[in-house]
Amino acid sequence: MAKHLNGNHPDGELRVVRWAQWQTARWLNPEGEEELPPPGPKTLARYIDHTLLKPEATPRDIETLCREALEWGFAAVCVAPMYVSLAADLLSGSDVKVCTVVGFPLGSTEARTKMYEAMQALHDGAQELDMVLPVGYLKAGRYDRVFQHIYAVVDVAKEAGAKVKVILETGLLTPEEIVRGCLLAEAAGADFVKTSTGFGPRGATVEDVRLMRKTVGDKMGVKAAGGIRTYAQAMQMLEAGANRLGTSTGVRIMKEAQGRA
Amino acid sequence: MAKHLNGNHPDGELRVVRWAQWQTARWLNPEGEEELPPPGPKTLARYIDHTLLKPEATPRDIETLCREALEWGFAAVCVAPMYVSLAADLLSGSDVKVCTVVGFPLGSTEARTKMYEAMQALHDGAQELDMVLPVGYLKAGRYDRVFQHIYAVVDVAKEAGAKVKVILETGLLTPEEIVRGCLLAEAAGADFVKTSTGFGPRGATVEDVRLMRKTVGDKMGVKAAGGIRTYAQAMQMLEAGANRLGTSTGVRIMKEAQGRA
Repeated sequence: MAKHLNGNHPDGELRVVRWAQWQTARWLNPEGEEELPPPGPKTLARYIDHTLLKPEATPRDIETLCREALEWGFAAVCVAPMYVSLAADLLSGSDVKVCTVVGFPLGSTEARTKMYEAMQALHDGAQELDMVLPVGYLKAGRYDRVFQHIYAVVDVAKEAGAKVKVILETGLLTPEEIVRGCLLAEAAGADFVKTSTGFGPRGATVEDVRLMRKTVGDKMGVKAAGGIRTYAQAMQMLEAGANRLGTSTGVRIMKEAQGRA
Repeated sequence: MAKHLNGNHPDGELRVVRWAQWQTARWLNPEGEEELPPPGPKTLARYIDHTLLKPEATPRDIETLCREALEWGFAAVCVAPMYVSLAADLLSGSDVKVCTVVGFPLGSTEARTKMYEAMQALHDGAQELDMVLPVGYLKAGRYDRVFQHIYAVVDVAKEAGAKVKVILETGLLTPEEIVRGCLLAEAAGADFVKTSTGFGPRGATVEDVRLMRKTVGDKMGVKAAGGIRTYAQAMQMLEAGANRLGTSTGVRIMKEAQGRA
């Protein structure tokens, strides 16, 4: 790994040392799971990333999203990179985090571009980064490249105290590839693995989430995303092992939850 | 505009002068249209960008793509940013250009990230950049931002002698927004306007292409992309005013063309 990192960073050795430190800290003190009240109709909002990533979303749509997130107390809003500074302004001083995406949704931008994109997002106020791993390299067994892509983002995020979620796009992967993707995300120091982009062939399934939770144990978080549109689906994902949900229908889900409470 | 550019570049005034020079050169010497033999069964390949952008594409798939491009004499291959250096290696010394994508397919990354991504791609050997404009800003009437995104890419591409195609994602736009997108692309110094990403709600239509050609006249190229799968469709797009086609089924189209020749 040292050789690999040196090839991509001028100060590669320092970074290897830092990477080892994070890993040690995480093994001593696992932080993947957040301490939250058990999920139910009243607490569900704290598990939800309130998401709006469709390309035609306007600044006004982002304002609505942020207002809803404050109103319902969602964990975060998840917005496109070009709207991070707007969301950060609107949510400043609140408990709602600003989440954005990196290399999204195809995962096939260059590792250096993902790093730059992450830096820009952190500069603009992002506190969580959902990055897509390079699916083609995972399929081709180029695990060095997959690690490099994830690590490029983790590296800059850790310095800023931000969390990294690694999107696998499980709809394109075999179960074995899902396991490998999780292990690479863990090795590179990411905080969460995440099922899907919402732009791929399918969204999260209970099987994906179970497999991912089984693979990462309690050392990391698991975010289910894509196609979660009802309270029942949301609870199903959490029961399968997810501890964060990405959905664009959070308000509808919470209203349904209220009806049950 | 000077104010706008100064806000984004330390040497904004110099860049305004350069921008004016490009524009003048283009008005004196329109270069949007390439000099190609009229399209027909034997010459069609020279109008085609042989495209593979699906996220699960492996390095081996890119090798096949490049081999086919050399065999059939396509205008370019269009590959994901992480495969540009591989494609540039495989095609070096040939007439087949290396094209890649920027801010793809949602167009909602930051302008600075698009600029960095473009620089990385040019460094890796890309000669043509297909960038997606920020659809949400276009819809919101934030034309300053749309211009800024396009210009950020044009600025670095021109220095490297590379061409820029601006993807509008017409399936998300009204005719009026399509016209505005074309005018902004022209004003920012881009070489082509392009209909679609192939990942949006729909691909190119004859109406889109006609409207775009009518808007840009002969000062720019028009690339039709998305859903072009047959020889008849390809010829239809060219007759409507396109002078470049993006398709992942170029080989099938050329075999069909051969059958007709």
